[in-house]
Amino acid sequence: MTSPVDATPLPGPARPGGRSARVRADVLRAVGEELAERGYDALTIDAVAARSGVHRTTLYRRWKTVDALLVDLLEANRDDTWAPADTGALTTDLIALNREVRTAALEEPSVMSAVIAASFRSPAAAAAQTRLLDDRYERCAVVVTRAIARGELPADTDPHRLLMAATSPLYHQLFLRRQPMTEAEADRWATTTAAAAEAGAFQA
Amino acid sequence: MTSPVDATPLPGPARPGGRSARVRADVLRAVGEELAERGYDALTIDAVAARSGVHRTTLYRRWKTVDALLVDLLEANRDDTWAPADTGALTTDLIALNREVRTAALEEPSVMSAVIAASFRSPAAAAAQTRLLDDRYERCAVVVTRAIARGELPADTDPHRLLMAATSPLYHQLFLRRQPMTEAEADRWATTTAAAAEAGAFQA
Repeated sequence: MTSPVDATPLPGPARPGGRSARVRADVLRAVGEELAERGYDALTIDAVAARSGVHRTTLYRRWKTVDALLVDLLEANRDDTWAPADTGALTTDLIALNREVRTAALEEPSVMSAVIAASFRSPAAAAAQTRLLDDRYERCAVVVTRAIARGELPADTDPHRLLMAATSPLYHQLFLRRQPMTEAEADRWATTTAAAAEAGAFQA
Repeated sequence: MTSPVDATPLPGPARPGGRSARVRADVLRAVGEELAERGYDALTIDAVAARSGVHRTTLYRRWKTVDALLVDLLEANRDDTWAPADTGALTTDLIALNREVRTAALEEPSVMSAVIAASFRSPAAAAAQTRLLDDRYERCAVVVTRAIARGELPADTDPHRLLMAATSPLYHQLFLRRQPMTEAEADRWATTTAAAAEAGAFQA
């Protein structure tokens, strides 16, 4: 789980931090676009240089390798301000989350799919992906703690297990089984999980 | 889901079908070993020829490409006689299934991981993986129909959704989040899913 791994992780020119931050934003946007359009195999420093307009010597000095660029793309996603929707109820919060996961997964070209593919081939990308997913799980825990505070869930509900139950069928279906999933199906995983959680399925 | 993608999908010399079937068994065993030990990038017709002892001209004539070898490995897994354990109760059937998935996923070197990685890079491998997983889901449906027959589950329980709920957290954790999972955790996804199913969570 969860949330888009966005092709444009940093807003770019408007981002504070001056020239160095702008260069990073331009480069990482180019990395995301290259990955999504051409895949990990075709990702090269030279291609990123050409697409970003940043000189290749700058790229070689600052990132050194393609894997370092990919890791930085994932790290930049951890820097963003993404937070799960606060709809006022567990079921609708989980529906909103699953719709986001589904939309990001079905994006064409898909940065998320390219990053997952890269994680099978580069230990650095795999480690960065673990950190990114863990970061997303931590941000989403608030969906569960809010529901506990509203009295919808037992106080000892485990946020991580609940979120895994809601989202992992989407990842499995879309990335491993490689079959489509309708929005209604994604919603149903959310509602089924919420009902099970309310019945105590994810108590510690 | 589910079940080992085994490095030795065919029993080999004892298999009926004569020389052609023996050649296929030797070749596919070599493909699985090459994949698991060296990965998709290093998979070549010549490497498979060297490992299997089958002449490369035979390989080029019969399979033509590396992707065709990989697809045939997955097809051969569909030919096997694997069936889920019949332990007499839904919870223990799902525990047995999840333990098999976990064991296959944690195998080192992992054919399952290599096949998933290849599916991100070869459309033919991706399609074969979809067929393999669908085949496994179909074989596992009997776990659910047996539980319905025993009166453990509502008659309109959807086998596919129930099996997805039980197994997809394992795939997500082990292959996408890339974190370990204890046997106790795998068991718990089985027991949580069984309890939810008995409460009607996966009714059509």
